[in-house]
Amino acid sequence: MGKGGKSQEEANNGEENMAAWLMGINNLKIQPFKLPPLGPHDVKVRMKAVGICGSDVHYLKTLRCADFVVKEPMVIGHECAGIIEEVGSEVKNLVPGDRVALEPGISCWRCDLCKGGRYNLCPEMKFFATPPVHGSLANQVVHPADLCFKLPDNVSLEEGAMCEPLSVGVHACRRAEIGPETNVLVMGAGPIGLVTMLAARAFGAPRIVIVDVDDNRLSVAKDLGADGVVKVSTNTQDVPEEVERICEVMGAAVDVSFDCAGFNKTMSTALSATRAGGKVCLVGMGHSEMTVPLTPAAAREVDVVGIFRYKNTWPLCLEFLRSGKIDVKPLITHRFGFSQKEVEEAFETSARGGNAIKVMFNL
Amino acid sequence: MGKGGKSQEEANNGEENMAAWLMGINNLKIQPFKLPPLGPHDVKVRMKAVGICGSDVHYLKTLRCADFVVKEPMVIGHECAGIIEEVGSEVKNLVPGDRVALEPGISCWRCDLCKGGRYNLCPEMKFFATPPVHGSLANQVVHPADLCFKLPDNVSLEEGAMCEPLSVGVHACRRAEIGPETNVLVMGAGPIGLVTMLAARAFGAPRIVIVDVDDNRLSVAKDLGADGVVKVSTNTQDVPEEVERICEVMGAAVDVSFDCAGFNKTMSTALSATRAGGKVCLVGMGHSEMTVPLTPAAAREVDVVGIFRYKNTWPLCLEFLRSGKIDVKPLITHRFGFSQKEVEEAFETSARGGNAIKVMFNL
Amino acid sequence: MGKGGKSQEEANNGEENMAAWLMGINNLKIQPFKLPPLGPHDVKVRMKAVGICGSDVHYLKTLRCADFVVKEPMVIGHECAGIIEEVGSEVKNLVPGDRVALEPGISCWRCDLCKGGRYNLCPEMKFFATPPVHGSLANQVVHPADLCFKLPDNVSLEEGAMCEPLSVGVHACRRAEIGPETNVLVMGAGPIGLVTMLAARAFGAPRIVIVDVDDNRLSVAKDLGADGVVKVSTNTQDVPEEVERICEVMGAAVDVSFDCAGFNKTMSTALSATRAGGKVCLVGMGHSEMTVPLTPAAAREVDVVGIFRYKNTWPLCLEFLRSGKIDVKPLITHRFGFSQKEVEEAFETSARGGNAIKVMFNL
Amino acid sequence: MGKGGKSQEEANNGEENMAAWLMGINNLKIQPFKLPPLGPHDVKVRMKAVGICGSDVHYLKTLRCADFVVKEPMVIGHECAGIIEEVGSEVKNLVPGDRVALEPGISCWRCDLCKGGRYNLCPEMKFFATPPVHGSLANQVVHPADLCFKLPDNVSLEEGAMCEPLSVGVHACRRAEIGPETNVLVMGAGPIGLVTMLAARAFGAPRIVIVDVDDNRLSVAKDLGADGVVKVSTNTQDVPEEVERICEVMGAAVDVSFDCAGFNKTMSTALSATRAGGKVCLVGMGHSEMTVPLTPAAAREVDVVGIFRYKNTWPLCLEFLRSGKIDVKPLITHRFGFSQKEVEEAFETSARGGNAIKVMFNL
Repeated sequence: MGKGGKSQEEANNGEENMAAWLMGINNLKIQPFKLPPLGPHDVKVRMKAVGICGSDVHYLKTLRCADFVVKEPMVIGHECAGIIEEVGSEVKNLVPGDRVALEPGISCWRCDLCKGGRYNLCPEMKFFATPPVHGSLANQVVHPADLCFKLPDNVSLEEGAMCEPLSVGVHACRRAEIGPETNVLVMGAGPIGLVTMLAARAFGAPRIVIVDVDDNRLSVAKDLGADGVVKVSTNTQDVPEEVERICEVMGAAVDVSFDCAGFNKTMSTALSATRAGGKVCLVGMGHSEMTVPLTPAAAREVDVVGIFRYKNTWPLCLEFLRSGKIDVKPLITHRFGFSQKEVEEAFETSARGGNAIKVMFNL
Repeated sequence: MGKGGKSQEEANNGEENMAAWLMGINNLKIQPFKLPPLGPHDVKVRMKAVGICGSDVHYLKTLRCADFVVKEPMVIGHECAGIIEEVGSEVKNLVPGDRVALEPGISCWRCDLCKGGRYNLCPEMKFFATPPVHGSLANQVVHPADLCFKLPDNVSLEEGAMCEPLSVGVHACRRAEIGPETNVLVMGAGPIGLVTMLAARAFGAPRIVIVDVDDNRLSVAKDLGADGVVKVSTNTQDVPEEVERICEVMGAAVDVSFDCAGFNKTMSTALSATRAGGKVCLVGMGHSEMTVPLTPAAAREVDVVGIFRYKNTWPLCLEFLRSGKIDVKPLITHRFGFSQKEVEEAFETSARGGNAIKVMFNL
Repeated sequence: MGKGGKSQEEANNGEENMAAWLMGINNLKIQPFKLPPLGPHDVKVRMKAVGICGSDVHYLKTLRCADFVVKEPMVIGHECAGIIEEVGSEVKNLVPGDRVALEPGISCWRCDLCKGGRYNLCPEMKFFATPPVHGSLANQVVHPADLCFKLPDNVSLEEGAMCEPLSVGVHACRRAEIGPETNVLVMGAGPIGLVTMLAARAFGAPRIVIVDVDDNRLSVAKDLGADGVVKVSTNTQDVPEEVERICEVMGAAVDVSFDCAGFNKTMSTALSATRAGGKVCLVGMGHSEMTVPLTPAAAREVDVVGIFRYKNTWPLCLEFLRSGKIDVKPLITHRFGFSQKEVEEAFETSARGGNAIKVMFNL
Repeated sequence: MGKGGKSQEEANNGEENMAAWLMGINNLKIQPFKLPPLGPHDVKVRMKAVGICGSDVHYLKTLRCADFVVKEPMVIGHECAGIIEEVGSEVKNLVPGDRVALEPGISCWRCDLCKGGRYNLCPEMKFFATPPVHGSLANQVVHPADLCFKLPDNVSLEEGAMCEPLSVGVHACRRAEIGPETNVLVMGAGPIGLVTMLAARAFGAPRIVIVDVDDNRLSVAKDLGADGVVKVSTNTQDVPEEVERICEVMGAAVDVSFDCAGFNKTMSTALSATRAGGKVCLVGMGHSEMTVPLTPAAAREVDVVGIFRYKNTWPLCLEFLRSGKIDVKPLITHRFGFSQKEVEEAFETSARGGNAIKVMFNL
């Protein structure tokens, strides 16, 4: 990107491509980001909407998330949508001007997991803003065309960016086999709990009860369509009584529970509330070790299924948004532009939580 | 049942039907056991072989097992085979003289779980020697004909009685979807671990590694066909190193782990050793609460499936025995007759453990 | 039912129980129908709504349906709902006065198919109005309580009777695994095609195209919610061109096709229109032998799944009706009382077809 | 690679790469075959064993197979194994000298079918010797490393080449869900019927009955392990009587039937012989249109599943060969060298049929 010879980016649009770099703890800087060359199956996308995910905030605060550690400056961001600017020589389904949502992970397609239909578990996965791979909070990114999904006319770019968090809920619902006969319990009314609830509804769940410690969150969940809400304590000893209340509010057996928080207490409640032969899906990532009543649950053949990201979810998310089966717009509570100051403010807003559900950049 | 006041049992064979009654803690008595009337779909079976299960011993020592409590004297025993003596008016597939193995549980067939194909989870289940239902360590029992399975000519009555413990392994393998591509880890080389290993082999598992703290048990497992054995400690801190050794012995990824012990350590090892996208099946019943690394396992989509007893397993068990795919004879280590003294000795032998795997009564 | 002593029925309500008996070809007579004794798990139901099925008409015209032959006078009717009048000694979930929909088939629960979760295939099935079993077009019937499903308050008795035909669509959708990603083609807009379409929508199918030779039927289908309709000929040579039109109207790949007619042409169209890896579900019963392009479909891994009646469908049907996800009221086009004359007229109306979809008796 | 203008092939070994080209009907010529450049994830393999498939013969005789037409000269052959000569820069799991079996199809990994785990249905598939893609009957080929599977030490190169036909049987068994409870009927004792039988046995099928019109073929099938054989006619009217004989020989219900011939008669027999709730897998490709009793089969919920090639089968085939669960050596009845004359003779031998099962080249 040196002098004396325009870089690819400069040549391209008379401007340099800028991105939000995570430089260190609590240190984000907008700086130039040199794009890789455009391969025959790639597209170049001008980013228009990028959301902030909990993991982005976690990286900003700790440079870590699960086992991943940021060791070099890294462009952040992975919930995104934009407009096609250029397509590789072999790309057939997209043309410049197309509005697209981006699936952030590039898997290897050579390992057993990829070939076996579980590419989300690929050990060679290259995923936006998972170190050492750069993310997508940038003016432009280069990405495989098959991971860019054209938006229906009635779906906005912001809604397109919401496909990423929504995909978590969709993947969880698929793994838990939600359908029109599945009464669903959701533990936790944070962003992940909410998208899981919306997805479960779209998969046909007839009754959904959502549980949290916070009245405001429960009120939001109610507005977004929960059939019942139950306020609980953080005290594990209350589990039996709370399970009783949950079942009462459900008015039916709980077929599947999603633990979208990941605490001992939420998981214990999920395991205890679910009917014999049902499922508990662990969506939220809390402490590594959990102390939970696993044995009695197993003895009722309540299975525990986990999820890692998602696979093949964008087309379904877009269909849900197109048809109106899911409306993600109420989840977008804050919007920011793409300046140094606004980026900092946006991340602070997301980190504070409060009434912020999804914080979105408009680039 | 005729005139002159004789009971059904006396009339039947000029003898009274005797059974082993659990009268209190460590108190078993052989006493008369009056049979219920023979319904149109029932058969009367003369018991010939009855095995002792860990749960029988548990009831003898504590009058409890899981949530079940013995409050009234109860006939014990549920692993059994015998010879048909009499058939109800509607019974078509069995005749007196047929040798049969008995499935011990009678489900209601009216609840959702029964109708939905998971009758083992029926809340109305009446199961031999699960209070308050009497068991089958008796000269005769009356049982539904459809739960009595004719033995192939080359399968002995003792082997027939072994269908019950073997069914646990078969049901576990079905729930964990074991097949010719599934490399299997078995935690625990006790009776349940051994039948699970034998079942997994019969389902086609190409490699099976079994783990225990006891050299003798591992030696038995090796003789019964384990591809590899790993001796471990009881110290949870050794898990990472032991997982490494297990994977080395396996020489491949662990696709499915069975925890046949149910301790924090065995379950932690199972969860850690299993490959992304694999399964852990919790077969053994240990403490109710478990402290285990559930979150990282869920994040690799390692699912935890539980089992409760079994369903539809007798025909397959008998086929495995008939074809020689499974040989259960080496598991029968001790045999006793049906006298007061021998019953007491037999239960003591089973309770002591040691080199006893399966203790069998020949009636 | 003799003299000199009131029969059970007379005693019960001071009236005799009357039923519509199929006496011979085109010969239906309302005559007394003596009820069997009420078993401990049975209920006595006062019939209030009974629909006429195509098979009822077929029996009336030919005394046959598939392999079943009417050899003795038989009470007809099997789509029904009513009010509980009396409950057996062991019945816990129902009380007199409860409004219920009746599942018409009593399976044996002793055969492999029943125990394996496919009770609809039970070879011992006793099914209303399938010879030699009597049906339910009667003032009262005795039926197992577990096959009587309580109606939600906002579901009428007529809608309750519609659970039976709707169950065919629901079972077809389950077997074809319809969900929010399945674009559906329905061949045939008769009563079965319409309930299949309604069920597919309730299972989440995003796009449904329905095909028929008749403009009126297509217009009804459109009114009931089809996304697209295609009028076709009866000429097999038109298949390629019609498949093209179907795909155009769908605007997407056909994931699952339901053949609700059962002709060579409809099945050929279904097989050809369905995408690689999709499914064709054969719902309609036409000629036994079919001449269809099975080989090229199999070579694209388009599977053909069949259905026989249904299983475990009533709770889901009632949930669909309660929630409004399905509205069956527009399907009820004609209503009749329960007199000799009206019974004859009703069957004639159903047999004529025309604009009749479902003909219903109000008793 | 090298100075002075030599082609890649000449430079490599001081020899030109030769291949068997299909030039026209009944016209095969050994001619030079220029290899494509070695990509970073590719390997160059020296071919050592190549088998002749029925489709190869079909192309030679007609230049067609199903919808594929040979329009330009094409290298033939796709059942093959060899020795790694060179590996691309990114290849990690193979080194020169490794003995490998080759999976012949390269899918796109960008379409919905590839991503959804059904890559065998990829519309962009590039498959050895399916026009216009060249095959592998050559001294050397370049192929993706992830489609080259290392042979266990006790598996020969010829056995490695047999993974291809065996994969058809393995894929069929997976789609039909063969396991230790599945009694299997195989229609047709040709090469495909035999590999399907061997695969079904390895998947655990307890009883396998095989049917053919030819005594010699049945005798071979018996030698290879069929539990029973049934000789049948080519007359469709004999189906009912033959089904009776088949069931008698099976001595049990037929759970799954494989039609490995693809005639109206074989498919009719398969559909009629299979128990309610069973499956028929159509493996053989006969006439496009079939006239078969599809309706009564569907009404017993006998599903028809098709197969196209295979996916993810090589590791399992190699495990079956390694463990001795399958022995393919008896299927290799003829061997030829790689000269013009021998290639012609080999294809004639395969085309004649007779006692030839698999004809193999040793290069």
